[in-house]
Amino acid sequence: MSERAHDWEGVLAEAHAAARPHLEEGRVAQYIPELGHADPRWLGLAVHTTAGNRASVGDASRPFTLQSVSKVFGLAAVLAHEGDRIFERVSREPSGDAFHSIVRLEEERGRPRNPYINAGAICVASRLPGTTAEAKVSALQDFLAEAGGERLELDEAVYRSECRTGSRNRALAHYMEHWGVIEGADVAVDAYFRQCSLRIDARRLARLSLFLAHGGADPESGRRIVSEAHSRTLVALMTTCGLYDGVGGFAVDVGLPAKSGVSGAILAVVPGEAAIATFAPALDDNGNSVGSLHALRCLAERTGTSLFRGHQGDLA
Amino acid sequence: MSERAHDWEGVLAEAHAAARPHLEEGRVAQYIPELGHADPRWLGLAVHTTAGNRASVGDASRPFTLQSVSKVFGLAAVLAHEGDRIFERVSREPSGDAFHSIVRLEEERGRPRNPYINAGAICVASRLPGTTAEAKVSALQDFLAEAGGERLELDEAVYRSECRTGSRNRALAHYMEHWGVIEGADVAVDAYFRQCSLRIDARRLARLSLFLAHGGADPESGRRIVSEAHSRTLVALMTTCGLYDGVGGFAVDVGLPAKSGVSGAILAVVPGEAAIATFAPALDDNGNSVGSLHALRCLAERTGTSLFRGHQGDLA
Amino acid sequence: MSERAHDWEGVLAEAHAAARPHLEEGRVAQYIPELGHADPRWLGLAVHTTAGNRASVGDASRPFTLQSVSKVFGLAAVLAHEGDRIFERVSREPSGDAFHSIVRLEEERGRPRNPYINAGAICVASRLPGTTAEAKVSALQDFLAEAGGERLELDEAVYRSECRTGSRNRALAHYMEHWGVIEGADVAVDAYFRQCSLRIDARRLARLSLFLAHGGADPESGRRIVSEAHSRTLVALMTTCGLYDGVGGFAVDVGLPAKSGVSGAILAVVPGEAAIATFAPALDDNGNSVGSLHALRCLAERTGTSLFRGHQGDLA
Amino acid sequence: MSERAHDWEGVLAEAHAAARPHLEEGRVAQYIPELGHADPRWLGLAVHTTAGNRASVGDASRPFTLQSVSKVFGLAAVLAHEGDRIFERVSREPSGDAFHSIVRLEEERGRPRNPYINAGAICVASRLPGTTAEAKVSALQDFLAEAGGERLELDEAVYRSECRTGSRNRALAHYMEHWGVIEGADVAVDAYFRQCSLRIDARRLARLSLFLAHGGADPESGRRIVSEAHSRTLVALMTTCGLYDGVGGFAVDVGLPAKSGVSGAILAVVPGEAAIATFAPALDDNGNSVGSLHALRCLAERTGTSLFRGHQGDLA
Repeated sequence: MSERAHDWEGVLAEAHAAARPHLEEGRVAQYIPELGHADPRWLGLAVHTTAGNRASVGDASRPFTLQSVSKVFGLAAVLAHEGDRIFERVSREPSGDAFHSIVRLEEERGRPRNPYINAGAICVASRLPGTTAEAKVSALQDFLAEAGGERLELDEAVYRSECRTGSRNRALAHYMEHWGVIEGADVAVDAYFRQCSLRIDARRLARLSLFLAHGGADPESGRRIVSEAHSRTLVALMTTCGLYDGVGGFAVDVGLPAKSGVSGAILAVVPGEAAIATFAPALDDNGNSVGSLHALRCLAERTGTSLFRGHQGDLA
Repeated sequence: MSERAHDWEGVLAEAHAAARPHLEEGRVAQYIPELGHADPRWLGLAVHTTAGNRASVGDASRPFTLQSVSKVFGLAAVLAHEGDRIFERVSREPSGDAFHSIVRLEEERGRPRNPYINAGAICVASRLPGTTAEAKVSALQDFLAEAGGERLELDEAVYRSECRTGSRNRALAHYMEHWGVIEGADVAVDAYFRQCSLRIDARRLARLSLFLAHGGADPESGRRIVSEAHSRTLVALMTTCGLYDGVGGFAVDVGLPAKSGVSGAILAVVPGEAAIATFAPALDDNGNSVGSLHALRCLAERTGTSLFRGHQGDLA
Repeated sequence: MSERAHDWEGVLAEAHAAARPHLEEGRVAQYIPELGHADPRWLGLAVHTTAGNRASVGDASRPFTLQSVSKVFGLAAVLAHEGDRIFERVSREPSGDAFHSIVRLEEERGRPRNPYINAGAICVASRLPGTTAEAKVSALQDFLAEAGGERLELDEAVYRSECRTGSRNRALAHYMEHWGVIEGADVAVDAYFRQCSLRIDARRLARLSLFLAHGGADPESGRRIVSEAHSRTLVALMTTCGLYDGVGGFAVDVGLPAKSGVSGAILAVVPGEAAIATFAPALDDNGNSVGSLHALRCLAERTGTSLFRGHQGDLA
Repeated sequence: MSERAHDWEGVLAEAHAAARPHLEEGRVAQYIPELGHADPRWLGLAVHTTAGNRASVGDASRPFTLQSVSKVFGLAAVLAHEGDRIFERVSREPSGDAFHSIVRLEEERGRPRNPYINAGAICVASRLPGTTAEAKVSALQDFLAEAGGERLELDEAVYRSECRTGSRNRALAHYMEHWGVIEGADVAVDAYFRQCSLRIDARRLARLSLFLAHGGADPESGRRIVSEAHSRTLVALMTTCGLYDGVGGFAVDVGLPAKSGVSGAILAVVPGEAAIATFAPALDDNGNSVGSLHALRCLAERTGTSLFRGHQGDLA
């Protein structure tokens, strides 16, 4: 697909204006106390195209932690490391449950429904190379540095906050260990807390994710990060499983593969064209960023990039 | 998106050859006895492009009943009739359950997760115009005649077979009536059985579905069937909810919006480009046609039409 | 067990006084509109001992419909008719769910957890002798006339109200039919609505139930109604499954086998000694009569009849 | 209730003979490897009456670990320590789920259904006095020494085996900690593993449990162990929640309050009369000892001690 000549600066400005009035409709996540310090009025948007164009607006350089957006990268690293064998431990199907539900895990004998719910991501983290949590996350940091050119650092305060409040995730890990789906529950959940606590900003997130829009290779360095098939896997799962219990509505309203995190970030991909990162800390009842959702809805409408459109010609 | 010059005849021949060895891995649906007479070796494939090209191979003119593929058309007709108000009664989220599960319905106080599971489709059928089941399905037949140029007829034997064996669907209908989500459980479920029993073949199904690939308008007649936004809704929900508990794997492996039925049909859409219909009666454990899945996997691989690819340039 | 010389008149007066202040804490059932006309201040208590003593207080002659108390008698009639074969269709275990839950039914492939939840009672009703709902309930009326000396009549207004609002029970019946657990869903659910609508009062209910306190034989007529083993079955299941989601607390606080109904009745049995019937229309969140619970708690405390006491000698 | 003059030696001999042919129908628990060494042919029965009579047969002095039978004693100790406040953390209702189910815990926001499922018992263990697992179990050992005259010792090999294989219990503990139902998941689960690993035999178990048959006081020493109301609570909950998913059938077939453990023990109580302990390691699909169930069925039949009988006079 040759790149369409979108005026990305203009699009982002419009999206920012469209989202701003809605920012305070949501609530900043409180269950990890350290995240509770965020200001609900922050709003940052960034685009990076496979052709090398960049645009950003608002708080696009303000740091946040990856949180669940890290699930995409953890899976990417494990796919690069051990390939599709990870799918013997975790399924690829939408869950229809809250992201942290333990119910489904019992029905499926400990096998998480997909790698983008908490249980699945903890399972994936357990398969990162290395025997300690530090080593596993170091391997992930190396992988991401290869993809995006720089090494993400751990936000120690957020990490400690995750550890203190992470009993549900510990429960998921021990439960999977019970079923033999993972080994080393404590290390796995610690690695997961660490990867969630990696610090980034919208601009760097868009840059880092370019390989997902470009068939698994970084268009700037030319380096292959994951295979073309694995890139499709990562992106397809974003479409069906990336926004918790808002994934169906997002497919209808926006129509782009995306992954959200409770820090307020959403990473969206326009296959063949661009990576988009948004950041606005206040969340809706599904745990998705209200500001990010509004911005992406406007952006997709304005650019006609929904994957589910038919007529491209209608758009001037 | 300008049409890519695929050799569709060649692609279908390859897909047919790829699928044939797998046909007998599945089992023909037995729970509706009339469907049990199908031959697991039947395999028909048809493509119709928005530019007017057609191709087909194998049993592409052999009649089958729409079954769950009808859910897309029922929703299309109701969206055309009453618009998004239908989504006050039915959600738009993947279910993560078997297509006929009643469990989720209890958790959500009778509101079906999406219009492409049985409960959702029965709810949608209850909203077709008309007060009797006959009138409702006649309205659907008129709608489909408008879209595809001809009126689908009821397969009486299949319809009677559905009625005799449809206790689970009756349970779903009464349960939704209990919660006030539908009125008239008996009429709704009868209308649903009738729409499932409409007779078609792969060639006509591809033709009829062109509007879904063309932003809601039929490219041949120029008639608008549903709005552009509703077309996106229909197609997006196919992507997230169209293949029961195989939807995530299909997104990864094929990457096209699709809807399957227990008669062995799958309708797939390449937005902006084509509608594809496949027919092979033997089903896998998820209730999806084994032959159709193999054919579509080959077809998408060969044409590079997965929505989740990045690099189009890689394909010669 | 020789009868203990309780002053039942005095005990009932105390229990009535203890319950009265709590009557308006509950709410009269509204979901069957005809039941909504009851006055929350009504309170009737009656005891009938196996030795022939009787006592009653308050609204003990005011008519009400059996509702779920009928589940005990339906099971008694079916045990007398076909014996333990009924337990091939329905289990004997507590459900841990609301009385009308459909979730558990899916997990257990349509087999109800016990005969005292709605699904179980509908299944039992399907096994009453006769092919029509009228015939089945007539057989039950005959059975009860044998046990208690008089024939209970149908309350037509309540029956019609049940029919109009019984969608959830219809759903349960069709769902069991789907799994082959019952045949004839419509007849079964109609028979169930009819048995729920049989009219009685507290005095007659205590009299009628004497056989449950006397090893299956009516102590007044000497007639055997059910076998000794079936009597134990009926009474044991009251203890483990008779009060919906309040059964555990009732065992602790009262300690007698009992069955409640949404009309506000509770039937309790002191094995070897007496049958007790209470009536107070306002219900708690579990669907059990608030006034009846308070009265029975007082009564059991005062008489020391909890089955789970050790020291009888402590009681003066 | 004055003691009935049962020939307990004769009754136990009959029960032993009745159970022996069935011993190898079950399977010795394997999931705690140390328990897997038990011989499925072991069978020990012991009775101790409140009047001071004792009888035993077979392997009644062969040691086993308390396992889930300890749940009754843990609850007794906590009721003695903090009273009914424990029921703010754990409900008193049957669960209708397997003993280790985590599903119900999610529905009820981390509050276990009753103290005799694993989650409930771990919650109770967290409330034993003391801040370490050792201190908590030492308090329990003291409590039991008060009740039965001797201090039970820890079986170190079983304890280590529990620790190695206890991931599901760890999951339950962390999950309850998430919901704020317990504090200190690791200590709680360690205390629970320790109490499960206390070593006893059938003779000593019957002796130790006399207080449950005697209104909360030990009839031999005269010491009050728990209040009369708490004794009823402990015994009532055995009736409704003591045998996992076999509790309803046991109430029908045996009719005595009882608690089973995966070591093959069952403790049964005849209120006012006796404590009975059985031991046979092979288990049925519900996790209850096959030999113990057969022995208790015979015993209850022979002595007419079912709580749900009416006619005592029928028994010669």
